[in-house]
Amino acid sequence: MPDTSIPPPRIAKPLFGTVGVVGFGLMGSSFARAVRRAGAARSVIACDKSAAARRKIADLKLARAVVKSPELMGPVDLVMLATPLGEYESVFRKLSPALKKGTIVSDVGSVKAPVLGLKKLLPEPGLLVPGHPIAGTERSGPAAGFGELFTGRYCLLTPDADTDRGAVRRVGRLWRALGARVEEMSAEEHDRILSFTSHLPHAAAYALVHALRDIRGAGAEGDARYAAGGLRDFTRIAASDPVMWRDVFLANREQVLARLDEYAGVLGRLREAIDRGDGAAMERIFAETRGYRRSVERAGQAALDAPIVKGKK
Amino acid sequence: MPDTSIPPPRIAKPLFGTVGVVGFGLMGSSFARAVRRAGAARSVIACDKSAAARRKIADLKLARAVVKSPELMGPVDLVMLATPLGEYESVFRKLSPALKKGTIVSDVGSVKAPVLGLKKLLPEPGLLVPGHPIAGTERSGPAAGFGELFTGRYCLLTPDADTDRGAVRRVGRLWRALGARVEEMSAEEHDRILSFTSHLPHAAAYALVHALRDIRGAGAEGDARYAAGGLRDFTRIAASDPVMWRDVFLANREQVLARLDEYAGVLGRLREAIDRGDGAAMERIFAETRGYRRSVERAGQAALDAPIVKGKK
Repeated sequence: MPDTSIPPPRIAKPLFGTVGVVGFGLMGSSFARAVRRAGAARSVIACDKSAAARRKIADLKLARAVVKSPELMGPVDLVMLATPLGEYESVFRKLSPALKKGTIVSDVGSVKAPVLGLKKLLPEPGLLVPGHPIAGTERSGPAAGFGELFTGRYCLLTPDADTDRGAVRRVGRLWRALGARVEEMSAEEHDRILSFTSHLPHAAAYALVHALRDIRGAGAEGDARYAAGGLRDFTRIAASDPVMWRDVFLANREQVLARLDEYAGVLGRLREAIDRGDGAAMERIFAETRGYRRSVERAGQAALDAPIVKGKK
Repeated sequence: MPDTSIPPPRIAKPLFGTVGVVGFGLMGSSFARAVRRAGAARSVIACDKSAAARRKIADLKLARAVVKSPELMGPVDLVMLATPLGEYESVFRKLSPALKKGTIVSDVGSVKAPVLGLKKLLPEPGLLVPGHPIAGTERSGPAAGFGELFTGRYCLLTPDADTDRGAVRRVGRLWRALGARVEEMSAEEHDRILSFTSHLPHAAAYALVHALRDIRGAGAEGDARYAAGGLRDFTRIAASDPVMWRDVFLANREQVLARLDEYAGVLGRLREAIDRGDGAAMERIFAETRGYRRSVERAGQAALDAPIVKGKK
């Protein structure tokens, strides 16, 4: 998606000197683009373990330098971690000996409690500011990123009692400069809320599209021609990055299992209503879910990939 | 959505004289707009039992005349039925004594076998041509319609052995004039395929959004702020017309129950993979579902509400 809208006013003075972005997929590359677009840092160093990604980053001129491992980034003022969650521990171990004093470490991961659990691996644990910009598309890789991805979206920061408040403020200021709305909550609350609003929907969509393939077999490909609105949306969600989502479900396992059990219960009740021909019960449920949609729209979070523009619906 | 694209060439000679559209919601009103836009009929008569809808139709000048019951439409050459499925039988009974000889009766309903079952209520059963344009949005009512809704979408016709072939050809020509791709299949095949591509996804989305409301209670409204991509799509699907969908599930009960059982089975297997920490199994499923999305995109059915324009992705 090209950056066609009017860019935000550039920051008078960059908020950080050098920012090192580790993992340059959709999120990392969008973050880097947004930082450059806003003039929020003096320079960006890219780190990605994939040679193909590194070539793409160089081709697209998305960073001042491109390295293959985090300890090779040289001194940076902020590390933004954007790899799948399963790589965090290895990145933290490589990064730690190479960090200069005062470097803030933050991330964009979709589960937050396990990230806080890794702070002991850092030389200055108080400078770890876990974050989660709630934004994304089903595309992956450095070329899929775009600088407006975070515009109007929430970015949740989940520090704990030991986190340096100055570091939290600086990371919050940075995300606001990229157009995000910043809020703070505990890592536990984050992981519970996101299990409802993000992890369960992704699990449900993956299971549904898998069920189609499983049952229809080769016929499923042909059925795609008759994909009505519902299935189209599901297939989009179920096209999200497989490794990223594997790690999300593993990292937030307890909450996700609880949501799946609750979901199975409600599906069973809907099944019963259909089985006994209880139209009134169905209509009640469907009218209520329509009401919930209206609240999502009122919250200004209804648009899909498009950036949210205030005052437009 | 305004009709901003270049309209299709107007038909040299209208395909029908007067078309009566019964049920003037999203589908009926989109059909009427598309017919006028293409010049596919000389005039449109609107029928809707809701006084508010009739006022809206008159305000928007969507029809030459507006009546409240199908027997009041006067002689028409084609009846297009676009009410919820639960009203069909009553409409057929009112309509039958008023139909002039040779009037073709068609519909846009999402389930087809029960529609064919009603043909005995018509004076000329062979002139019933059941149809289903696979298109829609989560909006309802006459004002929600737009003339491009069917552009590039499939419209499935499900005649049986007794259906007049000339009537099938005329209805097919009409839908093609509105921009749709027309295919024929049996009502049973239609109801089975659509249970996969449309009915199950809607049931899954309704259940998921209901589960959020059910479990989070008042908190669910607040969570909407943190609605990530996945939930946003689900809430859109679960905002579809409650009465229409109640009737779809009732009319296609056996197929929908079978799909719900299969879905529950796959959800259970995904739950087990997460529970035992089986990342490889998850990654396999998620990579496969991503592949399925690509096939939907190749079939040109990936866009959401927007009309499909050939050569654009």
